[in-house]
Amino acid sequence: MTATPKILELNAFDMDDTAGLDPAVAELVARRKRTFGPTSMLFYERPLNLVRGEGVWLIDADGSRYLDAYNNVPSVGHCNARVVEAVSRQMATLNTHSRYLYDIVYTYSEKLLATYPKELSNIVYVCTGSEGIDLAMRIARTVTGGTGFIATDNAYHGNTSAVTEISPSSASTDAPNPNVFFVPAPDTYRLGAEAAAAKFNADVRAAIATMHERGIKLAAFIADSIFSSDGVFSVVPGFLKETLAAVHGAGGLYIADEVQPGFGRTGEAMWGFMRHGIVPDMAVMGKPMGNGFPIGGVVVKPDILQLFGSQNGYFNTFGGNPVAAAAGLAVLEAIEADGLQENARATGAYLAERLSYLSQRHDAVGDVRGVGLYVGVEIVTDQQSRTPDKAATTAAVNGMRERNVLVGTAGKHGNVIKIRPPLCFNRENADALVTALSDSLAAYADRKRR
Amino acid sequence: MTATPKILELNAFDMDDTAGLDPAVAELVARRKRTFGPTSMLFYERPLNLVRGEGVWLIDADGSRYLDAYNNVPSVGHCNARVVEAVSRQMATLNTHSRYLYDIVYTYSEKLLATYPKELSNIVYVCTGSEGIDLAMRIARTVTGGTGFIATDNAYHGNTSAVTEISPSSASTDAPNPNVFFVPAPDTYRLGAEAAAAKFNADVRAAIATMHERGIKLAAFIADSIFSSDGVFSVVPGFLKETLAAVHGAGGLYIADEVQPGFGRTGEAMWGFMRHGIVPDMAVMGKPMGNGFPIGGVVVKPDILQLFGSQNGYFNTFGGNPVAAAAGLAVLEAIEADGLQENARATGAYLAERLSYLSQRHDAVGDVRGVGLYVGVEIVTDQQSRTPDKAATTAAVNGMRERNVLVGTAGKHGNVIKIRPPLCFNRENADALVTALSDSLAAYADRKRR
Repeated sequence: MTATPKILELNAFDMDDTAGLDPAVAELVARRKRTFGPTSMLFYERPLNLVRGEGVWLIDADGSRYLDAYNNVPSVGHCNARVVEAVSRQMATLNTHSRYLYDIVYTYSEKLLATYPKELSNIVYVCTGSEGIDLAMRIARTVTGGTGFIATDNAYHGNTSAVTEISPSSASTDAPNPNVFFVPAPDTYRLGAEAAAAKFNADVRAAIATMHERGIKLAAFIADSIFSSDGVFSVVPGFLKETLAAVHGAGGLYIADEVQPGFGRTGEAMWGFMRHGIVPDMAVMGKPMGNGFPIGGVVVKPDILQLFGSQNGYFNTFGGNPVAAAAGLAVLEAIEADGLQENARATGAYLAERLSYLSQRHDAVGDVRGVGLYVGVEIVTDQQSRTPDKAATTAAVNGMRERNVLVGTAGKHGNVIKIRPPLCFNRENADALVTALSDSLAAYADRKRR
Repeated sequence: MTATPKILELNAFDMDDTAGLDPAVAELVARRKRTFGPTSMLFYERPLNLVRGEGVWLIDADGSRYLDAYNNVPSVGHCNARVVEAVSRQMATLNTHSRYLYDIVYTYSEKLLATYPKELSNIVYVCTGSEGIDLAMRIARTVTGGTGFIATDNAYHGNTSAVTEISPSSASTDAPNPNVFFVPAPDTYRLGAEAAAAKFNADVRAAIATMHERGIKLAAFIADSIFSSDGVFSVVPGFLKETLAAVHGAGGLYIADEVQPGFGRTGEAMWGFMRHGIVPDMAVMGKPMGNGFPIGGVVVKPDILQLFGSQNGYFNTFGGNPVAAAAGLAVLEAIEADGLQENARATGAYLAERLSYLSQRHDAVGDVRGVGLYVGVEIVTDQQSRTPDKAATTAAVNGMRERNVLVGTAGKHGNVIKIRPPLCFNRENADALVTALSDSLAAYADRKRR
């Protein structure tokens, strides 16, 4: 028996460390290891055996309820009745690919495109954010004739061969693609918002210059506007205008990855790029689009799509089928009917404010930042040195799990607590989260003192 | 208004040719063109406005019923009650990603893996066949250290950046990747089965030799074993043994694309590669896996997955979630309970026999071939010259659509009628299909004579 290989993963369960687990959980871990292999990652030091979901709650086999402050896929709530009903009904009625006509698909497309600036008036459906980003890259290469991409240096945009090359946080040991250039995300904590934004744009211009020196033509710049995997940097709205100008000046396209900030999560706008007053050339949607039904999409300017489509026969078997449209339509209706964008704004602001008080009580809380219901808490050894503390972050995340609150980690040093709940998260939920974090930080500090 | 760009597509509706369409259909076409752009393809000269599906039937807005002999996604029947019920129940219970434990996911995995040879004992879930093939390519590159791929010269394996490079039938005008080599599919019609198989293996060996001359190391050979897009060549079982030996001899991996032949469609076996008595290194599943719920998977030898996983942090947000597992499990149960593999064998044999009689009545029917419920009818100008006749094929496919039977086309000359119905297709359905094809061929021959 060889030892399980380990790769750098944030917040991972050690598959070999099953001692002390509940026997039922240990048995599931063993079955997982046999079928998925030992390198497939589970969250938390003590993995969760889940059996039910409901709004912001996940429930395990023992009936324990966990406050979900991590999952952005069930954006309108776990097992949202509207979505379940729409998908169930459409699945029982008709489900086939997009080479035939279906009213519901165009009804959904029209409603979805109406939330975008009018320049972005075409859509291509796919099944996942990864497929969407991959397609956007194909479109950018075809339309610009370029091969160069610029992304941030701890970005995650997806899992295909091409998208992995622009996703440094995916822990691949493949040789880097020399056509891909990385810039650091704007570190507002260490530089201040204005300086971080200015440095970011200077870095993008420098990357373009280096690309040109090496004879590489820019195909596209890609970012998610809240720099989620980089550690959640929402920065000053508007600074991406300068980025867009630099990218267009070099003949490249601007791809807005809306998989994380999209569908109202930022509270301030339906789409992350809107906070910056820009119109990208493409926007890619994924995760929350169908509240768990696999659907993604690329929204694109029509002249760009037409140029691509005249040279490529793109087809996606499941993409844009009537069940996907039913799921997507129900999500848009739920966001509207339940006022989820406004809730993301108001509850997100409340949560961030409550979290920021923690810095008075805990020297480990270096920075609290974010927008709407996407919040990052940067954990450091102390507020003076601002040194990233991955061990404390891991302890806090696992401590919160033991207190029945689920969060994750982000950032290139693995020291940012990623808070990204379903959008129906309320103030009471926010209070519970803050208490769990505070208690976990205190317990870890206690353990360290002893 | 610029003219709609046209690219080579089989059996495509001309988006500009809406004269003569039912006004309701024309309106849907206009809405589709506004949202999807003019390059998004619809099937048939008169597109279908579908509203309902049921077993082997698709029903349009006017209540007309179409016999579906084309769609392999709803493999256990359109709107199969078992699948609808399983998905609806699980969606209402729990739907989240695979970083937590779920009993149903491992139950499904165990049942699915039990249908494979014991060497293929690990699975990675994805959402589509394209994602699966893309991941298999990543795995092959990592594990072999090679970059070379061999595929057939009119193959279709999917739509990502990487997979498009091994899919010549996807009509991309991108520059070819010099690491990808193509061999012609075994043309049993013109060479005879034995000679076609021998030539195929000689071509694979020659491709490997050329690769080595150019300093390219083989990563993988990939084929779907019935060469669907190439024109449906099921050939003599067993000849892929020699292919596998050549590929392994060169240090490459063998990827079995089971998106088309898998899940019992060939009747003779659950998986296409099994007809050949080989054990590939990976098998990729897609389309019928969830009967329309987006799910795919890569089944892989454990040592290969472990090597890949120790160097890459692959994660797929929707892949292998409990709803996907519920869909997949219901599909396996339906195949078993309804005897669909045996039905594919028996009805497929009956259909092929009935179709082969058509060659006596129609000089255009050059060849009937296939296995189980995957049948190709090659249409030629005449049986003497065997010259591919794309115009007659297009006319036959559209003639069948006018007679309420849905089929498609395949082959690099666009002259093979692709017959690939849901697996619950019965003898009465087969008779109706044969009659519709015969009448369509006769009507086209009449029109040409006049």
